[in-house]
Amino acid sequence: MGKVKNPFLVVNPKSYLYGKKILQLAESTDKIAEKSRLQIFFTCPFTDIRYIREHTHFIIVTAQHMEYLKPGRGMGHILPESLQEAGAGAVFLNHAENPLTVSQLSKTIIRAKKLGLITIVCADSLLEATAIAEFKPDILLCEPTDLIGTGQVADDSYILKTTEQIKSINPDIAVMIASGITTAEDVYNVIKLGADGTGGTSGILKAPDPVRRVQEMAEAVLQAQRDRKNVTGRQ
Amino acid sequence: MGKVKNPFLVVNPKSYLYGKKILQLAESTDKIAEKSRLQIFFTCPFTDIRYIREHTHFIIVTAQHMEYLKPGRGMGHILPESLQEAGAGAVFLNHAENPLTVSQLSKTIIRAKKLGLITIVCADSLLEATAIAEFKPDILLCEPTDLIGTGQVADDSYILKTTEQIKSINPDIAVMIASGITTAEDVYNVIKLGADGTGGTSGILKAPDPVRRVQEMAEAVLQAQRDRKNVTGRQ
Amino acid sequence: MGKVKNPFLVVNPKSYLYGKKILQLAESTDKIAEKSRLQIFFTCPFTDIRYIREHTHFIIVTAQHMEYLKPGRGMGHILPESLQEAGAGAVFLNHAENPLTVSQLSKTIIRAKKLGLITIVCADSLLEATAIAEFKPDILLCEPTDLIGTGQVADDSYILKTTEQIKSINPDIAVMIASGITTAEDVYNVIKLGADGTGGTSGILKAPDPVRRVQEMAEAVLQAQRDRKNVTGRQ
Amino acid sequence: MGKVKNPFLVVNPKSYLYGKKILQLAESTDKIAEKSRLQIFFTCPFTDIRYIREHTHFIIVTAQHMEYLKPGRGMGHILPESLQEAGAGAVFLNHAENPLTVSQLSKTIIRAKKLGLITIVCADSLLEATAIAEFKPDILLCEPTDLIGTGQVADDSYILKTTEQIKSINPDIAVMIASGITTAEDVYNVIKLGADGTGGTSGILKAPDPVRRVQEMAEAVLQAQRDRKNVTGRQ
Repeated sequence: MGKVKNPFLVVNPKSYLYGKKILQLAESTDKIAEKSRLQIFFTCPFTDIRYIREHTHFIIVTAQHMEYLKPGRGMGHILPESLQEAGAGAVFLNHAENPLTVSQLSKTIIRAKKLGLITIVCADSLLEATAIAEFKPDILLCEPTDLIGTGQVADDSYILKTTEQIKSINPDIAVMIASGITTAEDVYNVIKLGADGTGGTSGILKAPDPVRRVQEMAEAVLQAQRDRKNVTGRQ
Repeated sequence: MGKVKNPFLVVNPKSYLYGKKILQLAESTDKIAEKSRLQIFFTCPFTDIRYIREHTHFIIVTAQHMEYLKPGRGMGHILPESLQEAGAGAVFLNHAENPLTVSQLSKTIIRAKKLGLITIVCADSLLEATAIAEFKPDILLCEPTDLIGTGQVADDSYILKTTEQIKSINPDIAVMIASGITTAEDVYNVIKLGADGTGGTSGILKAPDPVRRVQEMAEAVLQAQRDRKNVTGRQ
Repeated sequence: MGKVKNPFLVVNPKSYLYGKKILQLAESTDKIAEKSRLQIFFTCPFTDIRYIREHTHFIIVTAQHMEYLKPGRGMGHILPESLQEAGAGAVFLNHAENPLTVSQLSKTIIRAKKLGLITIVCADSLLEATAIAEFKPDILLCEPTDLIGTGQVADDSYILKTTEQIKSINPDIAVMIASGITTAEDVYNVIKLGADGTGGTSGILKAPDPVRRVQEMAEAVLQAQRDRKNVTGRQ
Repeated sequence: MGKVKNPFLVVNPKSYLYGKKILQLAESTDKIAEKSRLQIFFTCPFTDIRYIREHTHFIIVTAQHMEYLKPGRGMGHILPESLQEAGAGAVFLNHAENPLTVSQLSKTIIRAKKLGLITIVCADSLLEATAIAEFKPDILLCEPTDLIGTGQVADDSYILKTTEQIKSINPDIAVMIASGITTAEDVYNVIKLGADGTGGTSGILKAPDPVRRVQEMAEAVLQAQRDRKNVTGRQ
């Protein structure tokens, strides 16, 4: 699984936060990552990658999208090298709000690997995840579009089936389950059931105290990990 | 023409440069802007807007694209507020390498105006420029796609006709002509013929000494301005 | 206004109907067009253009979209010549469900004019309509996206303002108002207020008897025309 | 392999031909299909599907693209049901000139299967083909974009490797190789090397006598099949 640790947490503010406000959340999340030693991916607008990188030390600053162009033309496009030099360590690809063609996705993952960027690739169904697994992303996020932003969690059998099936194709791909994760309980449940990682957007940003919510989620991930070990001996 | 001065110069490295290398060119351009007092727009990848803003004082840091979404969802999309807070003072829209639908363009220009971002909007023909003029961009760049990157300059009659026609629709819109501008002579000619501004990408980046090319272009703009005044008294 | 008559009616089944079922509605509409002598545009899937053309004589078979490519490559794209030879006499462009970039729209309207296809071009706001008017479409359909499919009609002042403003830019462009037109009363009102044409999708297809609804709408258009003449003498 | 026979030939006029001219080629191809008993897929613009279906009996009329929408809204989009009722028996998907997102491709193949349409799905590399194979298309066309329209044929080792690898993933998927196929010799070679099918666009349309070229290609396919059997006993 390379640089991806099991378990991990993704804090994904999408386009809700930017500038000073996202920096505040990033700094708080950085302290949580430091204390808990949990691997936390933190996404931000492209404009804030360097800003957050310069003020944090433990979180992996994560771009929300990228293209496969090389340095040259490409007015307004998202150049991988520009993300990397700014300090991004990972990148989301093929999110339902920013989908890629089969060919773009294949080529962009190849570019990310060459630059050493961790890829978090979204799939809209288990069938799509199976296809995308052929591209060997670092993390595969299986997230039925219908559930995004609804606060509705994928049910246990879905989580179990998804995790097992992707692991059976390629055990080196980390499985992330994040559909409708809102509370620390949701986080605990998903990790306990076998997902390598999870994360949230509105569950965090709409919480009364977003930093506290991140703190609780980090603890829930680690508690689920301990409980998994106790039962199965699984790492 | 609001915050846009006549004449102006646009240094547009597209995706050729990023990180430290674009910062170097930005800092050199900033000195040229300071000494010459010429208004210079300098475009950069989204990741480098704040980086360049923090190290320069005279150039207008310019985003290469933007969308009209508001803070919220929009994974990987280009939020206007994120550009502005990072320090962008202007934004290119509808470039041939990143075209917008009629509706997107209309809505994005409205968003830019509300945020106080100068809009540099591209048109692929004089007819398209005439339509786009209705959206009242600050700067209208009329650039037949066929000429982009060819090093072939639009001919004099095209420049005269384009400038006059756009001015006749709305004298408050600055006219930029940049097709195939390579040398300082090209720059001089275009401004002398009446364009409010011009700029370049490969003409600058592929020059033996890019900073010197920017310097020469800046001087050519100002010389053309002086020569225009001498002849016509026109500002 | 060329081949466009004032008033006119547009029957637009979008992708609700195809094959035999759309042919039935087309044949019934053709009889209504014959008896009423009203100009009726009838849209259909690309596959059904020739089918409907071969079985009707009075309606103008109308494509729902088109691109500006020329014969050659373009796998799966919508070639203007293929629509024309199949029997299309008109084409919708820039519908909110199929928007075009500024450049595509400009070039596609030029292609349509050369082939003699009537263009019905959609705009999402009055501002966008003003810009699109520069491309001289035959019919301009001003339809705020928010209202599409809601059954909510644009209010009277919107209809009056839109019609007047587009006429003031170019009196040769026919103005179509169709937002949320459901009943014959809606149709009457819009034409009475000065629109050159109107039309509907769900208002027709979800009516208890779609053919009868088309019949009523056709009568309402003609009655509104007569009442307009009586009041204003306007043609 | 269901309704797909081994070997098969694809005649793909893209947007070069339409109306009467494509009908002529289709009718000639139909006679070739009848006499040779070879399975021939014949693509055409959407407007000509029914036209060709009504005048031919042996070729499989093939749409060049389709979307996954269901009957309803979808102005100008390509409704699967409309293709099927018009007489299409197969559909190309994800062609390099009309690429689909991962999610669109997955969903559109599912729609095609439900309607009984044979899917011919394009991949831009062997890696992409491997991923797409998970969606179980009927025919997988592996065609590096760089070679399309160049008249340059993929080399023998590429053909062998591609065919074997896709067969090893799923022996039920027919493998089509078509990069730069121009002559009957190219066709013979590809089928002899193990591809299930091949086809062409410019190789046919730019031939001095396109019908004769189709005839020669059909013979080459069958001859290669016989020679394959003689050597390997393979069907």
